[in-house]
Amino acid sequence: MADAYAGRRERLREHCSAAGSDAALITRPANVRYLTGCAPCGATLLLTRDRALLALPDDLPPDDTGEHLIAPEVTQVPVPAGADTALAAADAAARLRVTALAVEEHDLTVSRHRAVAGTAKGVRLAELGPVVESLRVVKDEHEIGDLRIAAEIADQALGELLESILVGRTERHLAMELERRMIDHGADRAAFPVSVGTGSHSGQPAHQPTDRRVEEGDFLTVVLGAQYRGYRVSTARTFVIGAAPAPWQVELHRLVFRAQRAGREALGPGVEQCVPDRAARQLLEAAGYTEASPHPVGHGIGLEIREAPRLGPSDMGKLDSRVPVTVGPGVHIPGKGGVRIEDTLVVRPLEEGGPELLTITTKELLAL
Amino acid sequence: MADAYAGRRERLREHCSAAGSDAALITRPANVRYLTGCAPCGATLLLTRDRALLALPDDLPPDDTGEHLIAPEVTQVPVPAGADTALAAADAAARLRVTALAVEEHDLTVSRHRAVAGTAKGVRLAELGPVVESLRVVKDEHEIGDLRIAAEIADQALGELLESILVGRTERHLAMELERRMIDHGADRAAFPVSVGTGSHSGQPAHQPTDRRVEEGDFLTVVLGAQYRGYRVSTARTFVIGAAPAPWQVELHRLVFRAQRAGREALGPGVEQCVPDRAARQLLEAAGYTEASPHPVGHGIGLEIREAPRLGPSDMGKLDSRVPVTVGPGVHIPGKGGVRIEDTLVVRPLEEGGPELLTITTKELLAL
Repeated sequence: MADAYAGRRERLREHCSAAGSDAALITRPANVRYLTGCAPCGATLLLTRDRALLALPDDLPPDDTGEHLIAPEVTQVPVPAGADTALAAADAAARLRVTALAVEEHDLTVSRHRAVAGTAKGVRLAELGPVVESLRVVKDEHEIGDLRIAAEIADQALGELLESILVGRTERHLAMELERRMIDHGADRAAFPVSVGTGSHSGQPAHQPTDRRVEEGDFLTVVLGAQYRGYRVSTARTFVIGAAPAPWQVELHRLVFRAQRAGREALGPGVEQCVPDRAARQLLEAAGYTEASPHPVGHGIGLEIREAPRLGPSDMGKLDSRVPVTVGPGVHIPGKGGVRIEDTLVVRPLEEGGPELLTITTKELLAL
Repeated sequence: MADAYAGRRERLREHCSAAGSDAALITRPANVRYLTGCAPCGATLLLTRDRALLALPDDLPPDDTGEHLIAPEVTQVPVPAGADTALAAADAAARLRVTALAVEEHDLTVSRHRAVAGTAKGVRLAELGPVVESLRVVKDEHEIGDLRIAAEIADQALGELLESILVGRTERHLAMELERRMIDHGADRAAFPVSVGTGSHSGQPAHQPTDRRVEEGDFLTVVLGAQYRGYRVSTARTFVIGAAPAPWQVELHRLVFRAQRAGREALGPGVEQCVPDRAARQLLEAAGYTEASPHPVGHGIGLEIREAPRLGPSDMGKLDSRVPVTVGPGVHIPGKGGVRIEDTLVVRPLEEGGPELLTITTKELLAL
């Protein structure tokens, strides 16, 4: 793995060099982690032509979860707690006689950029842009292995919940329990706050769990994901509570199930990013469900829960092999409820069996 | 309460006006919340001389936790999901013929600032600085009431934990349980991830819970806090597991206890910010515990877990009445463990009884 990090840093160096910068200042946590294998809170990476310096707070617990183990070719620069590591790195850049330093203008605030400029005396600041984000889009098999484990953890937690009694429990309790179970199964943490929506709350994309209790006849939508070694997945399922779903529930679930399958099946290397969205949306719109401002059917996923590429109706780029994405359409009928079904998959060519499904919990309309 | 928000916005208007701006663009979530009473994720407030516009994503669940209830004098501007609300607000500023728009350069990234400038055509951008943060320092009695409830919730969760069996349970489990209990008792959520450190992990300021199990004879340090209606508190306690603490444990606990008391007792209106830190540090240093890079003994607390004022050894400003702060010194002996004791208090004059202690769990060395 140390080689993988060194390879990533080398690609970033090549990019900087081609763009006329002799060093890069990396402040975005997911990018620091991608390039060093560790991301202690508030660390900054300075990457010059021949060195990699990681400025990090000096009060990190040494015997922590192992996240801070740093490859020997990365030099640690301890910074007093409370001080800005970006300034320590900028100071090092000046002392190393860097000429042009590319910074992440999409991550640095205006104030912090000004402080970096003031500290890096004699150094010209340039804009790096989302270069590390681009490097992160296609994953290697180690990264996909971590995503696979994250998906297994989420599936396990969800499977256990389905076996328990749900009627009478609140959305908040169910969400907390899912988070606890994921940690029990080895997750670093939940990839994002678990969403549980019942009855009229079901099917909403970003519902915050409330004290509403699960009742007979409810739709129950769960959106959850685990983080494992920094890598995150997301999955959503909708079930019905009680013996038999109502006809409208069966129909709505079948529709969203078909739309999600159409979206998944459209994934492939060389496919335009808007195609899976269109495949899913077409079915929903034919059934009369149109969105005023269309939500993308999915997005890339990895060290961040939402990263490039975006799978929206007007996204024009093409998908590559080994890009993990979510596909998760849904319908919400105000006051009534709805259905959301989401998976995390890896784009693969047909020769490799097509899209690799990571989150394998059944998408059938279970009656719980 | 609507009056309180209107009053806060009026004070911000006065500041802008004095600084030559006719409008402010507020993007920092805690500041948006302070000025409107609500902070849907990603909202931006545009405050002109006579209007308050809140640009917010159009896919907010309407029947959520009630956080999104917006005062009638604040006009909502729905923005398509995924779009930047700051740009919608900047566009509104241009259409309202704002001349000089003060922005939060400590919150906007360089890229976002550039996009705001590009959208707000004909509008000059100015720097607002941390003005809203300054307004937030002294709390009103409503805010202190919310902090008091947040402290009660944290105390209740901690009290229940102390009554349960601890030996054999992991740090991660105990931390999860404390978070769940705080939510059960009515917290919005944990104010920050709960830290539980046992044995050699005890006494560390930012220890991430591990799978280490609590053993007989361990020190156990718990750092926790609840959030209630957006307001946060923080508290830390250290206990010993088993029948009788070792002499070194008794001695170290007594020392930190005395240092923390000295810090608390030094709080008062008109007192320099460095004084409580000095009072606590003096005792620790006299006993031979010096820090290479001194951590402030505490900091302001409210809508953010760490806000102004800072109580560090070189902080020169003066404390005001009704400023909630933390006081939490600690000692960690590498490989052995340590003690941390922290409270959230409100600075009050002697006539009002002196510092008001919000987190009231006992600071005695309990043997659990």
